[in-house]
Amino acid sequence: MKDLTAIKGVMFDLDGVLYVGSQAIDGAAEAIERIRKSGLTCRFVTNTSTLSLASLQKKINAMGFDIPQHEIISAPYATALYLKRQSDPTCRLLLADDVKKDFDHFPVSDLAPKYVVIGDIGDAWSYSLMNETFNALTNGAKLIAIHKNRFWQTESGLQMDIGGFVEALEYASGVKAMIIGKPSVDFFHIALTDMGLPPHQVVMVGDDIDADVGGSQKAGMVGVLVRTGKYRQSYTDASPVKPDVTIDSIADLPSALGL
Amino acid sequence: MKDLTAIKGVMFDLDGVLYVGSQAIDGAAEAIERIRKSGLTCRFVTNTSTLSLASLQKKINAMGFDIPQHEIISAPYATALYLKRQSDPTCRLLLADDVKKDFDHFPVSDLAPKYVVIGDIGDAWSYSLMNETFNALTNGAKLIAIHKNRFWQTESGLQMDIGGFVEALEYASGVKAMIIGKPSVDFFHIALTDMGLPPHQVVMVGDDIDADVGGSQKAGMVGVLVRTGKYRQSYTDASPVKPDVTIDSIADLPSALGL
Repeated sequence: MKDLTAIKGVMFDLDGVLYVGSQAIDGAAEAIERIRKSGLTCRFVTNTSTLSLASLQKKINAMGFDIPQHEIISAPYATALYLKRQSDPTCRLLLADDVKKDFDHFPVSDLAPKYVVIGDIGDAWSYSLMNETFNALTNGAKLIAIHKNRFWQTESGLQMDIGGFVEALEYASGVKAMIIGKPSVDFFHIALTDMGLPPHQVVMVGDDIDADVGGSQKAGMVGVLVRTGKYRQSYTDASPVKPDVTIDSIADLPSALGL
Repeated sequence: MKDLTAIKGVMFDLDGVLYVGSQAIDGAAEAIERIRKSGLTCRFVTNTSTLSLASLQKKINAMGFDIPQHEIISAPYATALYLKRQSDPTCRLLLADDVKKDFDHFPVSDLAPKYVVIGDIGDAWSYSLMNETFNALTNGAKLIAIHKNRFWQTESGLQMDIGGFVEALEYASGVKAMIIGKPSVDFFHIALTDMGLPPHQVVMVGDDIDADVGGSQKAGMVGVLVRTGKYRQSYTDASPVKPDVTIDSIADLPSALGL
């Protein structure tokens, strides 16, 4: 087990670490409070791409947490942080309306953007949308995708996710997408820049051995696995990823950090 | 130059070999007539995927040719020939209405097909069409694509072609498409089966060094390049493909065949 006493910051995954469904994990709010009071920098990081930061904050804090909005970094908001550093962030946003709120300070151009950002837009895909985006890419726009998932499971069966549409645009235009969501190393580096800390001084706490622990370790961070949420012993055994530290739940994090 | 006197059949590419635009190439009709009268089996093969065989025949013969419909094999019709040999050819057809006429003897099922056939459907792509097709594929349907072109040039700019949508479905479902159009070896084998001849007894005559000459050679046939249509000396020099025979135009084919 790695010594965590020199750690200066913590990134927390949300679903499965702070709560499961709409139920907070026992002792989670207290653990976060103690870590923040000790002076460590906190960020709450998630791939969720259907909610704005304001909506996310409302959802989390309704479960008994007290997390300030500036500590939340969703994959779409990581994209906004990335765009903020570009000289011309003119963009076309294929994002849900609520998520667009986190991009309202950027200039938007549908036909001549510098960046096309693709997130979850449900059933809004059409030939004209694909063709306009393809033309923007062949005219030099860069492509950013929140994730590249193939499909998701619903009660009525499988639904095709945005990954295929991203792949289609890459194939037709020859432009490769930058993938922002975890386990992308870009995601962790954007969050680290926001924290102002080097990777080796920050732990990532997650329930996903590959996306959370593997991704953060690739970014040079310390990966902590919790035995809550989607954690299964069998996944951990089958994964090539080895967590630096494993704890039963987030409630055990303060003592693991020597607090 | 290869000896062509043992040849029993000829496949002709259409555009650039029989005609350019709407203008027949000098001596083309007479050359075809002479070849057919000598007893060689003829087929006219094309990747065109927006016209039925009846429409194609009308278009060609309006330029002074006299080609029977059963000698024309378009990429969609090659698909129909392939489906005819399957035990359950129940299909979903993403094809232009005119092209669907060549498939009217097949059972059709939109939600539970055994084969999904993708050709040119213009701007009819939508999320629901993609998602239904994706679900058919994850339920075991096979995927056939007429081609996998990335885009095409129009007067108003580039238009995204079906290749991206085929790639999207492959990515999301994990099902690889069978590509039917030239230079696919499958295409030439389907046409050879229709002719009842082995590959080495058939020449392919084309103006495209890669799709026509290279593709047919890979299928075991004899590749003849004509210096009409899209032929350019520079393309030929740059291509790894070496034609078995090169002639100035189709008018020179009878003498090359020893007729």
